[in-house]
Order: sequence, then C-alpha cells, then structure tokens
Amino acid sequence: MNLPRRLLCVITDDSTDPVELARLALEGGAGMVQLRRKKATGRELFQWAVRIQALCREQDALFIVNDRVDIALAMHADGVHLGQQDMPASAARSLCGPDAIIGVSVSCTDEALKAAAEGASYIGVGHIFPTFSKDKPTPPIGTAAIRTIRNAAQLPVIAIGGIDHDNAAEVIRAGASGIAVISAISESDDPAAATRELVKRIRQ
Amino acid sequence: MNLPRRLLCVITDDSTDPVELARLALEGGAGMVQLRRKKATGRELFQWAVRIQALCREQDALFIVNDRVDIALAMHADGVHLGQQDMPASAARSLCGPDAIIGVSVSCTDEALKAAAEGASYIGVGHIFPTFSKDKPTPPIGTAAIRTIRNAAQLPVIAIGGIDHDNAAEVIRAGASGIAVISAISESDDPAAATRELVKRIRQ
Ligand code: NI
Repeated sequence: MNLPRRLLCVITDDSTDPVELARLALEGGAGMVQLRRKKATGRELFQWAVRIQALCREQDALFIVNDRVDIALAMHADGVHLGQQDMPASAARSLCGPDAIIGVSVSCTDEALKAAAEGASYIGVGHIFPTFSKDKPTPPIGTAAIRTIRNAAQLPVIAIGGIDHDNAAEVIRAGASGIAVISAISESDDPAAATRELVKRIRQ
Repeated sequence: MNLPRRLLCVITDDSTDPVELARLALEGGAGMVQLRRKKATGRELFQWAVRIQALCREQDALFIVNDRVDIALAMHADGVHLGQQDMPASAARSLCGPDAIIGVSVSCTDEALKAAAEGASYIGVGHIFPTFSKDKPTPPIGTAAIRTIRNAAQLPVIAIGGIDHDNAAEVIRAGASGIAVISAISESDDPAAATRELVKRIRQ
C-alpha cells in the first residue's frame, strides 16, 4: 500500500487513554493512528486496538500497531510500526503480506538501507528536533537528514521527534511525506484542535 | 494437535540465558520448551526463538512461545501459551490455525470453561503448590483441583506451580497430562539432570 502524502500520524503515549486520544486525533483529521504503549499487557493492547480500529475505519484513517504484529494481524489493521528493538521487518513482512504498511524507526542511513532491504513500506526518521517524549540519549539529527536518508533508502519518510505546529511545515519542505507526533497531541489541552492545526500546517 | 501424555514443559525464567536453558532441558528429555521472558524486547525474543526452535526440532520436542503470538508465527512454532492478561485465545486460534497448540493459564473452573470455549488446546492449571517463581498473591489450589477443572473443561491439564521431583508423580496421579516447571530447572545446579529426574518421575 502506498502511504498518503502529507500524512499526520498520531501515536498514543504512555499515560493518556489511547482510545480517547485516538478519537480526538481523528476528530482533528489525523490520517493515521499508531497504538504504542510499551508497558501494556497483550490483553490491554487487544482491547484498545479493537476500539481504535473501529474509530479509524469510521474516519477512513489508517491504523497501525507498534511492535505487536500479532495484535495488528488480529485486527486486520493496516500495518505495524517496528523499532530497532522489535522483530525484524522481514519477519513482519512475511507475517503481514505484501499489502501491509510496515514502518521502521531509523536514525541513520545504515538503518534505513536495512529497513528497505527487509521490506519496509516507510521509515520513521528521527528524532529530528530535541524531544522529551522518549528517552533520547542521542542528539537530534536535524531536518537535512530527512532528504539524505530518504534518497538513500528510496522510501517515504515519516519524520518524528520534537515536531510541532511551528516546525511541521519545515519538515515537509525538507522531504518528509508525513510527520508523527506524540506529546504535541497527547499533552495538548485540546488534542483535536492541536491535530487540526498540525494537519493544516503540513498541507500548506 | 493432541498433546503428548506425561509431558514435561520447561519454561524459561527471567534471568537465565533461555537458549542455554532450553539446550540443557532438551538434553534432559523435556518434551516441550516454552519461551517466556516478560521484559524482553521483540528483537530479543525473536533471536532466542530462532535458536530454541532449532534445538527443539533436533530433539523432536515441542516449542511454544508465551504471550507473543507473532513470534510463534514467525518461527512456525508449535504454538503459544497465553496468560489471562494476554490476547484472547480465540484471537490466537484465528491467527495460528486449527493445528496450533494453544495453552491458557487458568486457576479456576470459570477460566477453564472460557479457555475451552475460545479454542484452547490445553489449560495450564495452577499454581498447585506454594511457589516463588512468580508473584502469587493467591493461595495454591492443590492437586484435587486438577481433576475438577479438567473434567469441567474437557481439556488436557498441564499443572504448574511449585512442582518438583517430590510431588510430580502425585500431580500426574491427580489427573494432569503433564507438568510445567520454571525454577525447578532454571535454579538447579544441573538443569539437565533435574529435567531427567522429573521426566522419570512423571513416567513412573
Ligand atoms: Ni527430594
């Protein structure tokens, strides 16, 4: 499946109710929701995923699951997103078939080339700017890395890390197909409005 | 797939190298290895599973994965084992197909009936005796519960919890098809010998 251009992917955080967050993000026009909750049980993920999948279908938005390929398969979700500590993209591709969206987090060209060789559909490139959403001991890679990595891997880039309404357009101009955000939405007082604003900025 | 009678399932613990533990358990004659490592990343589980699957095939032993149906599918493993906090057995059955071994942990008749209705192949019943392997705030259910739960669910029982060479035969006499052990093997000075002794006791 081809990834839509100028896509906003909203990723659930570790404290907000993920179903409610997804609902507000979809209300704001997010094109993709990624369920990510590192410490949740399989049962919790399954139950959230059932509900988020239904919400995404209502809005014609894409739904992907972080790490847990089995949860994605059980939902007939659109795909999965894999970090460098998750199962190899090649294994996920075998399990999910040729049409699934398989995203892989990368922070350099080497990781991007490996993701491409293993059958990734897109690469999540970051972190672009300083961020406190995840533990990030490494420095931000900056917007110039987006085009370099994209051109090397020949895959669409979803940029992540410290992206907000002030820098989102710059990230798209730098060559990203879309952006992924966590705290810009989950920590907003009005997640639907924050999503709407980000969608507007990346479509400018 | 029918579960072999008088089966010894060795479950990996949270500290020992799971591949080495599996190797020794198989050397001692374990009929099944279950990869269980709650805090491991998907990548770690995948890499261990590749090696344990190969060892199990060499010894004609069964290999199942705890919780992560995707890892089991990627290995073409024999099946999965699900706790009450993992994805529903019905979803795992849909993903794995009719021939997969799907075990579900239960501690009472209600959970056992639900597991049976959802397509479980066996029930892991426990904990039978006092145990320190996992956090168990509930009291042990005792050997008499094995037959009660088995007869209600009409599924083979693998008993778990505090089972060692002194009480293994009693558990089989109480109606269990097999036993599952963690610390009895992983905390033994000689895991292969401890496995061999347990296999002998449950075949008496
Ligand atoms: Ni003794």
